Amino acid sequence: MSTTAGLVIRCKAAVAWEAEKPLAIEEVEVAPPQKMEVRVKILFTCLCHSDVYFWEAKGQTPLFPRILGHEAAGIVESVGEGVTELQPGDHVLPVFMGECGECAHCKSEESNLCEVLRVNTDRGGMLHDGKTRFSINGKPIYHFIGTSTFSEYTVVHVGCLAKINPAAPLDKVCILSCGFCTGFGAAVNVAKPKKGQTVAIFGLGTVGLAAAEGARISGASRIIGVDVVSSKFETAKKFGVTDFVNPKDHDKPVQQVIAEMTNGGVDRSIECSGSLEAMISAFECVHDGWGVAVLVGFPSKDDVFRTHPLNFLHERTLKGTFFGNFKPRTDLPGVVEKYMNKELELEKFITHEVVLKDINKAFEYMLKGESLRCVIRLDA
Amino acid sequence: MSTTAGLVIRCKAAVAWEAEKPLAIEEVEVAPPQKMEVRVKILFTCLCHSDVYFWEAKGQTPLFPRILGHEAAGIVESVGEGVTELQPGDHVLPVFMGECGECAHCKSEESNLCEVLRVNTDRGGMLHDGKTRFSINGKPIYHFIGTSTFSEYTVVHVGCLAKINPAAPLDKVCILSCGFCTGFGAAVNVAKPKKGQTVAIFGLGTVGLAAAEGARISGASRIIGVDVVSSKFETAKKFGVTDFVNPKDHDKPVQQVIAEMTNGGVDRSIECSGSLEAMISAFECVHDGWGVAVLVGFPSKDDVFRTHPLNFLHERTLKGTFFGNFKPRTDLPGVVEKYMNKELELEKFITHEVVLKDINKAFEYMLKGESLRCVIRLDA
Repeated sequence: MSTTAGLVIRCKAAVAWEAEKPLAIEEVEVAPPQKMEVRVKILFTCLCHSDVYFWEAKGQTPLFPRILGHEAAGIVESVGEGVTELQPGDHVLPVFMGECGECAHCKSEESNLCEVLRVNTDRGGMLHDGKTRFSINGKPIYHFIGTSTFSEYTVVHVGCLAKINPAAPLDKVCILSCGFCTGFGAAVNVAKPKKGQTVAIFGLGTVGLAAAEGARISGASRIIGVDVVSSKFETAKKFGVTDFVNPKDHDKPVQQVIAEMTNGGVDRSIECSGSLEAMISAFECVHDGWGVAVLVGFPSKDDVFRTHPLNFLHERTLKGTFFGNFKPRTDLPGVVEKYMNKELELEKFITHEVVLKDINKAFEYMLKGESLRCVIRLDA
Repeated sequence: MSTTAGLVIRCKAAVAWEAEKPLAIEEVEVAPPQKMEVRVKILFTCLCHSDVYFWEAKGQTPLFPRILGHEAAGIVESVGEGVTELQPGDHVLPVFMGECGECAHCKSEESNLCEVLRVNTDRGGMLHDGKTRFSINGKPIYHFIGTSTFSEYTVVHVGCLAKINPAAPLDKVCILSCGFCTGFGAAVNVAKPKKGQTVAIFGLGTVGLAAAEGARISGASRIIGVDVVSSKFETAKKFGVTDFVNPKDHDKPVQQVIAEMTNGGVDRSIECSGSLEAMISAFECVHDGWGVAVLVGFPSKDDVFRTHPLNFLHERTLKGTFFGNFKPRTDLPGVVEKYMNKELELEKFITHEVVLKDINKAFEYMLKGESLRCVIRLDA
């Protein structure tokens, strides 16, 4: 039993007070976990594009002050009423979408969109009572997608925590908590390229490179990276990307360029940029008869996907996925094992490291396009 | 050896001289089959919507005079150079899309879009030399999608002929040659509903009802028919349709009506009407997490399918198919066997029967919406 169980913990957290203003390191109060909740000591967290997106708060209803952060690893400090699956000391990965285990989605072999713990970007409190567990001098600080990992301690619903092998290095496996699995799962769980097939990846950030890693492990013979920043190709080569196309270098649509490179189209494509035009290209660049395109990148509110229906009738398939179709509690321990068995190379995704007080540097690296993953250490 | 082999055959055919004018029964000359071609005595043919579509010639480059017809059954009269798979007397179903057996599509387990013998609605001659095998007093009459079955004799590429069990009644299995397989295959080969799942079918013509038949055989627990003509529901009940929705009876979008009927959406949907709005509804009415929608109905030239990309990200799948993904030569003999084993009820699709000279009545029945399949007998 932890000596802090049942007590309010005072600790450091990076608080976003308003949109686009640097985060401030504050001392926050973290209340004890309530029913079906777990308080976790976060040791490592990373910055993901989604954190930046909600920090910028463009085209959204802003929700501040808020503790962002969702890609992380930590250790259970204490558990609330009804929590039997976890106990203090367990090593866990918090995930922004949970797994209640009971709903139709959790019971389906295909879906990971848990009805109860589905991601809700507008919710600032806990599911149990709608209230926050964070405060500063009694003033509530909002949660972010059920995780809020930019804090030394956070409170998470038990359904949003994957219990993992305690031997796994948390400063590496923390990246499995969002970006890596999103791209990797899109490849191995959804696009499922067969040995020898060609795969196009749109958007060569962490998610896209993780998709390339999945395609490489699946035995793809050719992985075509598509990005508007040509300098990304050098890095991408380390992730198995064999060819590169910058749409800006061509007068014709990129789907046509790819069709010409591949005798009619790629077997699989995975869209990781969130750009609407890239989504359309990713679909239209797959081969008729058997091509499968997978959408991963998050669209804007007013986007409209459009294509001629004949592109479907010519036996192309379009799918989409959240978190690579991984069920967080069921599947993440296995992904950690894959890393432990040296089947996955996570290290190459981690390009930077800072301590909590320097968290705004992580934002700078990402906004400048310098980083893949910047790990923020809270273990000091 | 047939006594007519190598000679021009003079026989009756229904010729479309111009768009939307009744077909005229003419005596035509049918030249002997050339390299890789087969001359077939057609005994039964049906009228399909595609015949009417190319007869109306709206939004197309008109090609007349032409012998339409593509859903049929017959017997091989003679074969051209290089044909080894068929011989005179073989019972065959001509199919508008062929199977060369050698191209990437034919070798793929997934595709039936043969590169060599893919449907080409603009081609009026034979693949071998671009010329027609039909003429009237020496004046060429154009072919239609490689089949032209509104004639007592026709010439077809060997790759477009499925050899079937000679015991099968040709006046029934003739409907397998297009419409039935298109819908049935969309269900059993592409949508693949699991036992107990719910399926929505858009468009309750022959293709839609064949899709319902496929859903029923797959064990669907509930089959929701969607059509703008409410009177079709009575007939549809015989095909396993359990519920009916007429979009005109509702103020809200039909996808919302279906979601409310099914606790969030159907497991599978199959669009057989060719209406763009129905395509969008068919996609948006499938359940998130696992729903699969399949497009079958042929779109107009300027149609643009549109939806919010999030509908894909919420783990819905959209696919399309031609001819129900059946490979004509490989798969049709097996479908005929299913009928012979009483697994398929083809009789209920055949609502009318006429002789060749009355072929224009078949057009009337279809245009008035009175018929499913009208079999045109050429065996008299």
